[in-house]
Order: sequence, then C-alpha cells, then structure tokens
Amino acid sequence: MVTLTASYEELTESSAVALAIRLGLIQESSHLTCTEIGDGNLNYVFHIYDHKQEKGLIIKQALPYAKVVGESWPLTLDRARIESAALIKQSEYAPHLVPAVYYSDTALAVTAMEDLSHLEIVRKGLIAGKQYPHLSDHVGEFLGKTLFYTSDFATNPKIKKQFVKQFTNPDLCDITEKLVFTDPFFDSETNDFEEELRESAEALWKDLELQAKAAELKRIFLTSAETLVHGDLHTGSIFANETETKIIDPEFAFYGPFGFDIGHFIANLFLNALSRENEHEQQHLFDHVVNVWATFKEVFTKAWKEDSIEAFSVSDSFLETTFDRILKEATGFAGCELVRRTIGLAHAADLDAIPSPTRRIQQKKAALTLGKTFIKQYHTVETASDLVALFQPSVKE
Amino acid sequence: MVTLTASYEELTESSAVALAIRLGLIQESSHLTCTEIGDGNLNYVFHIYDHKQEKGLIIKQALPYAKVVGESWPLTLDRARIESAALIKQSEYAPHLVPAVYYSDTALAVTAMEDLSHLEIVRKGLIAGKQYPHLSDHVGEFLGKTLFYTSDFATNPKIKKQFVKQFTNPDLCDITEKLVFTDPFFDSETNDFEEELRESAEALWKDLELQAKAAELKRIFLTSAETLVHGDLHTGSIFANETETKIIDPEFAFYGPFGFDIGHFIANLFLNALSRENEHEQQHLFDHVVNVWATFKEVFTKAWKEDSIEAFSVSDSFLETTFDRILKEATGFAGCELVRRTIGLAHAADLDAIPSPTRRIQQKKAALTLGKTFIKQYHTVETASDLVALFQPSVKE
Repeated sequence: MVTLTASYEELTESSAVALAIRLGLIQESSHLTCTEIGDGNLNYVFHIYDHKQEKGLIIKQALPYAKVVGESWPLTLDRARIESAALIKQSEYAPHLVPAVYYSDTALAVTAMEDLSHLEIVRKGLIAGKQYPHLSDHVGEFLGKTLFYTSDFATNPKIKKQFVKQFTNPDLCDITEKLVFTDPFFDSETNDFEEELRESAEALWKDLELQAKAAELKRIFLTSAETLVHGDLHTGSIFANETETKIIDPEFAFYGPFGFDIGHFIANLFLNALSRENEHEQQHLFDHVVNVWATFKEVFTKAWKEDSIEAFSVSDSFLETTFDRILKEATGFAGCELVRRTIGLAHAADLDAIPSPTRRIQQKKAALTLGKTFIKQYHTVETASDLVALFQPSVKE
Repeated sequence: MVTLTASYEELTESSAVALAIRLGLIQESSHLTCTEIGDGNLNYVFHIYDHKQEKGLIIKQALPYAKVVGESWPLTLDRARIESAALIKQSEYAPHLVPAVYYSDTALAVTAMEDLSHLEIVRKGLIAGKQYPHLSDHVGEFLGKTLFYTSDFATNPKIKKQFVKQFTNPDLCDITEKLVFTDPFFDSETNDFEEELRESAEALWKDLELQAKAAELKRIFLTSAETLVHGDLHTGSIFANETETKIIDPEFAFYGPFGFDIGHFIANLFLNALSRENEHEQQHLFDHVVNVWATFKEVFTKAWKEDSIEAFSVSDSFLETTFDRILKEATGFAGCELVRRTIGLAHAADLDAIPSPTRRIQQKKAALTLGKTFIKQYHTVETASDLVALFQPSVKE
C-alpha cells in the first residue's frame, strides 16, 4: 500500500485506487474501477471511476524511463513536479482551460487531477474528421493569458527569475533541442522516415540556408527565457469537444520564447490539413490558424493595456514590435515542427494514417516543403494569413 | 575575532587582517598594514600588505546596504557569492585577465583575492590622459573566451541551465533594469542632471521611436540567457597598466545577452572620448572600439571552430548571423549606457570632470545625442567602424 511519504514506486491499478482513497479524493466503494489509459510512452495514467457517484479522477504518474523502449531510455521524474507546478500556474490565469490539480507528490512523481474523459484528444478527433468550433478561441485565450501573465510584463522581474529557476527543465528541453531542433536537420540516427522520402531528406540536410535559419531558431529556444511556455502544445496535448477545451500534459514546460507554443499548435493544424482530401475540408483548419493568432493578440493586448507592470508598455509601437517578433518566431518554430514530425523520431499520426501510400508520401513531401518554407521565410511573415498563403504552393509543388 | 564559520559581521581593518592570517593567506608579522581602499559605495575593500615579504592581498566584503546613502538602500549579500563564482568561472578561460581568488565565504560575503595595486583603474588613467595600448586586445580576448565558453556553444545545454540558476542575480539585475533600461527614459526620481540638460532630457522622454527601441533592448536584457556576462563592464571595472589588464568586480554577473558587456565597454570608451579636446586625442579610443570588436570576433571564431559542441556550428552563415546580432545588440546597449551615464543616477566621471561648465554641458548633450543615435539605429549597424562613424556628427550637432 502506497503511503503519502513513500519513496518512488510504480503504481498499479490497485495501488492507484488505494492512494486516491487515502488522499480522500474518492470514497472507498464496491463501485470503483481503475484502468490504466495512458497511450503515451512516458507515464502511467490511471482513470479511477466511481460508477455509483458518477465521479472520476485521474492519477498520472511519471515513469523513470521511456516505456516504449523498456528501461533503456531513462527520463527524470522531476517532470511530474514541472507538470503539476505548470498546471497550477496556468490555472491562476485560465482555470477553465486546464485540468484542476487535486494533489501532487514529487516523491511518487504523481499528480491527481480532474477527470476529462468526457472530452477527446483533438488529434484523434481531427483525424476522424471532427471539428472543434471553439478550439482556436480557447487555445488563443489560454496562450494570451498564460504567456502574458507569467512574463516580465506582468510578473515582477525579480519574482519571474525565481520562476525561471523553478521551471528549469534540462532533461525535457534536451529532448526538444535534439529531436525538434537538431537531428532532423542532419543525417542522425534518431530520424525515421520512409525510403521514398530519402531524396527529400538528403536535400534538406544539404540546404545551408535552411540550416542557418534552423540554427537561429534553436538558439532562440535555448536562450530566450520570456515566459512559461507549455512546451509541447500539439493537438495530442489538447482535450476538447464542441464547447469545451482543456490543455493538458505541460511536462515540457519551461521559461521559453513567446512564439513556441503558438508555432507548435499551428504546425499541427497544418499537419492535419495535409491529411485532408480537399481545400473545403481544410478550410476550418486554416480558419483556426488565423483565429488562434487573432485571439491571442486580442487577449494579450487587453492584458497589456490593463495589467502590464512594464513602464515601456505605454508604447503602442513596442506592442506591435512584440507581436511582429512573436509571429515570426512562431512561424519558424512551426517550420521545425513540420519537418521533425515528418522525418524525425516522433511522427504525426495525421500523416501516418493517410491510407494510400502514394498520397501519404506526397503529403509528407508537402509537409517538408511547407516546413522548409516556414523556416526560410520566418523573418518575412507579417500576418497569420501569410502562413495560410504559403500552404497551397507547398502542397502543389 | 572573525572565525571561519561566523555569521555576517562587518569587517574592520584589524579583523580583516585576523581573517587573512587565520586563513593562512598571509603570515602574522609586525610588518603588516591594512587599509580600506574601497571607493565604491557597496563594499569594503581591504588592502593587506606585508612590507617585509612585499606581498599583498585583497579582502573584499559586500555590505548589506549601499554605503553612500547609509543603511537606507538594502542590497543582497548574495552578490559576493556571485562575484567569487564568476571570477572563478572566468579564470577557467582567461586566468591572466582576472584577479586570482584565494578564498570565498558566503556567510561573511567575503572574497580574498589577488592584490592588483600595481595596476590602476582604467577610467582614472584615461581621465588623466593615459593610454593603455593593450586594453582592447585584452578585453576582446576576455570577452571572446568567457562569453563563448560559458554559452550553449561550449557548455552542454543541460549543464548551462544549472549555471543559469547558479548565476540568477535578481537584485543586481533589478538595479540595471531600473537605472540603465528604464528610469533615464522617463521623468524618474532617480535621474540626476544639470538644469541646462533639462530640455534635452525632456525631448528624450517624448521620443516615442526611442522608447520603442529602448523597450526592445530592455526586453533582450530581461530574457536573453545566452552566456555568463560580467554585467558591469565599464572602465571603472578594469585594472590595467601598459602591459597588463585585469577585469574585476563581476558582482552584476548573470546569464545575459552576448552583446551586453561589449556595448558597455564601448560606451565608456566613447564617454572618455567625449571628454577629450580634439580628434587626435580621441583616436586611440576609437581604435580600441574597433579593435575590441575585431579581437572578440577573432577569439570567438577560433573557439567556435575548435571547441563548439553545437551541431549547427558547421554553418559559417550561422556564425556571421551571430556576430551581426551581437554587434547590433551591443550598439543598442552602448546607447542605453551613454544615456544613463549622462542623465541617470550614476554618472561617468569622464564627463563630470570636464572643467569648463559650458563645454561639460555641450559634451553631455553630445553623449545624449550619440546614445539616442545608437539606440535608434542599432538595427542598422554592420561594423564597429560604423559606431565610430556615428560619433563625429553627434558631437557636432
């Protein structure tokens, strides 16, 4: 039986229930079930449900290794601390857009949180052809609020420096630095792609202009401690239905650049658009791209006007420059995400699930082209519509 | 008598000697003298000298308040830890350019270090009309080595993140954020200038273009955790003679932007040039501006080619982009330093010491003009000679 002062041990379905009862999060009853529902490769996710009270609960536990490759890839348990601290911080500013945290325990690397099983993972829903009309409203609001308020614009710079320390996340940043910003741009062992893409991949590895731009983007990721970013905001980190959205899994959270999450979200919208048959089916994804940026700007501007503690916030020109820079960097980050989801280690299911092999390769080539275009042209983008405008020529190339 | 496990107490000349003897740094003798030689307002600096052995020693102790205004301005003792840790880190890469640290004690906020009394403070020497022919060679080498090797280019990003935490310096960064990057750009209480400069100061406070650029530079200072910067590299932080140079006082050290120290050093060369009567006397200062950048680039490039751990360092274009960005940011930081040393709280003695009141005001106006020019045009500067080229029109305006 797991105690509250236990040293780390892997939970089982029964010890997870015991823990939840001990913590008073759920009542002992013959109507309880517990199922491990984690489909990631890094964590256990126990869904505990009281069928009589119709009340659920999630117990998430970080594993000390990457499950998919056995115990051979050790991974810090500290990410559980980061995740629960990030969820709590984000809930200060956008409580309706993240799961509520009931309990966290750094020794067990456990976070007990709100059951969101009435929602579905957006990536899965989008692959199944569903639409989430409020997705970009909610993600834009989440980003506008959490990114503004945890930055030097709203958190006293002395306090913010303590948060930078608290959210120092070397091991998970290392994964991003390697798998997103380095390996896909070189002939690296971790890369994984169909043989039909080899020619495109090799062309990419020889593209010196692309490498110089990717290097700049990696530098920004490594050094720009602007705000508490989610760090892994793809469509697999979002639960939603028609009316509700919850952003989950911030275990990659750290103080990083404003544009990082926006870029990743947008890239994953484009990845899904690439899996669609025609422009008509793609349109609502393009609308989300434009709307997430518009909503982010609107929410961020309101916060800037009302709550900025930065003396220079009187300058409208400074606000414009800030948005211009964020959009440009987001575009570059989106480009890196498109490239790495195509030829890197972790793929996007959206593209892998395209049934026709010919079309799958064709669309993956288009993803690479779009990614390269975003990276090379990130300095020139001025509106979110510019990103959509770059989509069609990439697909038709 | 001060013990090694003491809690904080202010040293006196006799307890400083007792500490040095206890630490075995100097031998008890009737030939010892101890003089407090600190001319700053934040620390005691005890110079202990054995006249028989002809051997000296410095014991520096941080005070818990700013001495100049009594005990009314509290200041963290943690800066003694930062200073000694920074000196030790810098000495890994440029031992001949920093004072050797013999001992440090965070409880007493004390650092025992090499006696440099055979050298003189560069600002004082320059004001007295002296030249230091190797000054820019040495400062360029110091910056090229320390800035390169403590960055992600040479320190594993996981380890570097630990250094970012170790060198988190909220209180001293706060001073820079306020006194360099904020207050001089607004009608703030801390500003201090002659009434004859009011018109120029008020024009500056209304200059919206200038404010937007200063805001960007402050943002870079606040967020860009690139490398271990000295943080206060003006000519008062450098000891030198004709052949030797030592960079002292890194209590403002933190992980900041590559261009910060270079900008401050260059600004202080220009401040001294403004105190000179004619171009002939200014020339060697301009030569130092061009040469410190050239030397920095040369040393940094050699380190990049030999020791970079960054995969993208194969890209020469990335190196060029990096230098281009560093010089631009350095120019902007130099502009902020010129402005704040003229109308902010802490002045440059170079300008304050100009004997003729008319000429003093004239040269301070020129400093403001040069500072404004650097800030507004920092995005356009391409070579260090461009900075020198901006000097003459500013002076003649």
